Amino acid sequence: MTQLQLARKNKITHLMREAAKKEAASAEFIRRGISKGRIVLPANKNHTSLKDPCAIGSGLSTKVNANIGTSEIYHNILTELRKLKICITYEADTVMDLSTGGNLSKIRKRIIAHSPIPVGTVPVYEVVANAKKDGLNIKDASVEDMFEVVEKQAEEGVDFFTIHAGVTKASIRVLKHAKRVTGVVSRGGALTMKWILANRRENPFYEYFDRLLAILKKYDITLSLGDGLRPGSIADATDKPQLKELSILGQLAKRAQKEGVQVMIEGPGHIPINQIKKNVDIQKRVANGVPFYVLGPLVTDIGCGYDHITAAIGGALAASYGADFLCYVTPSEHLGLPNCEEVKEGIIATRIAAHAADLAKGIPDAGRRDYSISKFRRQRKWREQINMSLDPRRARMIHSRLKSNIADICSMCGEFCPMKIT
Amino acid sequence: MTQLQLARKNKITHLMREAAKKEAASAEFIRRGISKGRIVLPANKNHTSLKDPCAIGSGLSTKVNANIGTSEIYHNILTELRKLKICITYEADTVMDLSTGGNLSKIRKRIIAHSPIPVGTVPVYEVVANAKKDGLNIKDASVEDMFEVVEKQAEEGVDFFTIHAGVTKASIRVLKHAKRVTGVVSRGGALTMKWILANRRENPFYEYFDRLLAILKKYDITLSLGDGLRPGSIADATDKPQLKELSILGQLAKRAQKEGVQVMIEGPGHIPINQIKKNVDIQKRVANGVPFYVLGPLVTDIGCGYDHITAAIGGALAASYGADFLCYVTPSEHLGLPNCEEVKEGIIATRIAAHAADLAKGIPDAGRRDYSISKFRRQRKWREQINMSLDPRRARMIHSRLKSNIADICSMCGEFCPMKIT
Repeated sequence: MTQLQLARKNKITHLMREAAKKEAASAEFIRRGISKGRIVLPANKNHTSLKDPCAIGSGLSTKVNANIGTSEIYHNILTELRKLKICITYEADTVMDLSTGGNLSKIRKRIIAHSPIPVGTVPVYEVVANAKKDGLNIKDASVEDMFEVVEKQAEEGVDFFTIHAGVTKASIRVLKHAKRVTGVVSRGGALTMKWILANRRENPFYEYFDRLLAILKKYDITLSLGDGLRPGSIADATDKPQLKELSILGQLAKRAQKEGVQVMIEGPGHIPINQIKKNVDIQKRVANGVPFYVLGPLVTDIGCGYDHITAAIGGALAASYGADFLCYVTPSEHLGLPNCEEVKEGIIATRIAAHAADLAKGIPDAGRRDYSISKFRRQRKWREQINMSLDPRRARMIHSRLKSNIADICSMCGEFCPMKIT
Repeated sequence: MTQLQLARKNKITHLMREAAKKEAASAEFIRRGISKGRIVLPANKNHTSLKDPCAIGSGLSTKVNANIGTSEIYHNILTELRKLKICITYEADTVMDLSTGGNLSKIRKRIIAHSPIPVGTVPVYEVVANAKKDGLNIKDASVEDMFEVVEKQAEEGVDFFTIHAGVTKASIRVLKHAKRVTGVVSRGGALTMKWILANRRENPFYEYFDRLLAILKKYDITLSLGDGLRPGSIADATDKPQLKELSILGQLAKRAQKEGVQVMIEGPGHIPINQIKKNVDIQKRVANGVPFYVLGPLVTDIGCGYDHITAAIGGALAASYGADFLCYVTPSEHLGLPNCEEVKEGIIATRIAAHAADLAKGIPDAGRRDYSISKFRRQRKWREQINMSLDPRRARMIHSRLKSNIADICSMCGEFCPMKIT
């Protein structure tokens, strides 16, 4: 049985108890949230190394996902394992392996085996990679090819799948009438759309949704309904294709829950600050508070090189309004594959956003860490303050760069230290 | 006559016309805003190198200030001039010289002479530095000493002064009853409070406010009413001392305007996301829409090493609700004096925040740059996209790090590029 099915039977599982350790909330609170479909607990029965599960959803602290993975141009498995280590060190709650280059199956297995946190994937990437190996294209993949990949990845222990089941003939029709600046910016969305248009057939994951659900249920994989038609620019934000897809995702989410499959919905994208609340509200409405997993949102298009900041602004705001799960964005977004340092920067920026949102939405005890750091700051206990920060090494480096001969002040204020004056 | 006095006489000045070049708004729009006290145009009559003035306030694009300046521990004038150059390159609208170490007058004169943008200072820092030179302390400074510094800096061409005139016997009384975690975190506020308590006298800038106004009027210096009692931690946000000081600042702002002196009010500080709107609304109410200059706000206390991000979140939000002017925060905040790289990072993070807010508050034409970049992105015109970004060198570096043999895709998506697939 899935965690959702167990929760409905009033069963508090070991995983719920483990996930509760990360929260001020109780295991029973998590059980109740799961039973209502407002919390998910991604944990594939075959992911045996999953030592640090987490629950995602309403009333819980905002979670952070980090994307790692190879690309065709650069695929070094050791680099990806190093990135995974960084994800764990800097406290990403989950990680997605978005590899598109190299031996995908081998990379994924290694990541799953080394990951104590939930691992997500986008199966359609492997569908394309397999087709390419045979000198073919996405359009040449059969429905069986697709489900084969899903089944294989499920068996390997992936905890959550992004499936772009909302890219359908109907939503593509709406897209065609929209005069978008950036068209389709989701890789999975673009690939799916290409398949549909080339084959003049419905999206297999939409058409055979029940078949998909059966696999997910078997392994208790959480379905993350991808937003393949998310806006890729401010000009396209909250437009008709985005909303059409979202309404389809809302219906699919309800069907998944009926089948006992845990589900969340992915969200935009590029959205200006003044439209973020509306986006969260609509998402929460279309499917009775299904957990909302947001990719950013990026609050402007001009931030390339610094899009971890652009996304931190949008993510903090979205989560303060009720989004539950933030996908990180790194400084290399829109430009290239992130390196290890950029993975770290992306995680920390997103953690700041998530934490700031938790303070705003009143997650119990969220302010404790702020309180402690501020108390140490007031007392000029530098070591304690720095050790409690998100990146002690960096904080220590800045603090010790310019040595003061007086231990309890910093190079900024010196004897003008307001904490010392008063 | 000051710009405010001229605006009231329906005179559109050369400075208003110059400032309008930065805006989608007209010089007449700026004149009207100035006449109502909702826009300021900081420009000391003696700042002859001021080639790039700006107007700050309601209906205009959000402006960004960068703080530079020495400290007692590190005071190299060339480093500060290098920082000034960075401020100009990365498009800070104004710069504050917050030097507290070395020959303050010499440093300030050099900065003013080299600065095409408005320069601000906090005169009380020099009052203390002068006292220290004589082996004395802030409390030993006389009222005359204080006004002498103000008069001298005014004569040198400083465009706006931060004066902590709201730290008074009355607001200190409120502070004493508040159980703050971080007490007073403003250097100017702490120094002023120390003077008041040690001398058992009222704040000279409050007691002799008219004398201060006379100097400001003579040179047309914009008064920036400092928030000496701003909260320095989430736990202290929007507390009674902060609000008491703000109400005093509101009264003083009205008196300044009556005298024809341009004025703005500084704001917090550390504020959680859910209290930012309230803070902006209160500030706008206490003094009929006087421009609001915010220091952050930092939306959590845990960000040290990354507080440019913490502040970008708060700043974007504050400005989207109506704050007009964002003071940057660098990654070295709370830890030490920023270096040149951190100055750059602080400016860019704050520019992103300001721009994101401009999109949200509907500043005309704000979305043009987003539109152009997104169009280039869609067309995979990398050079054009990168050249339009905030830091082309960094963007280029990331993009070219992993070479692809195909020119029009990046190392992230490779042949999975959604822009290319669709």
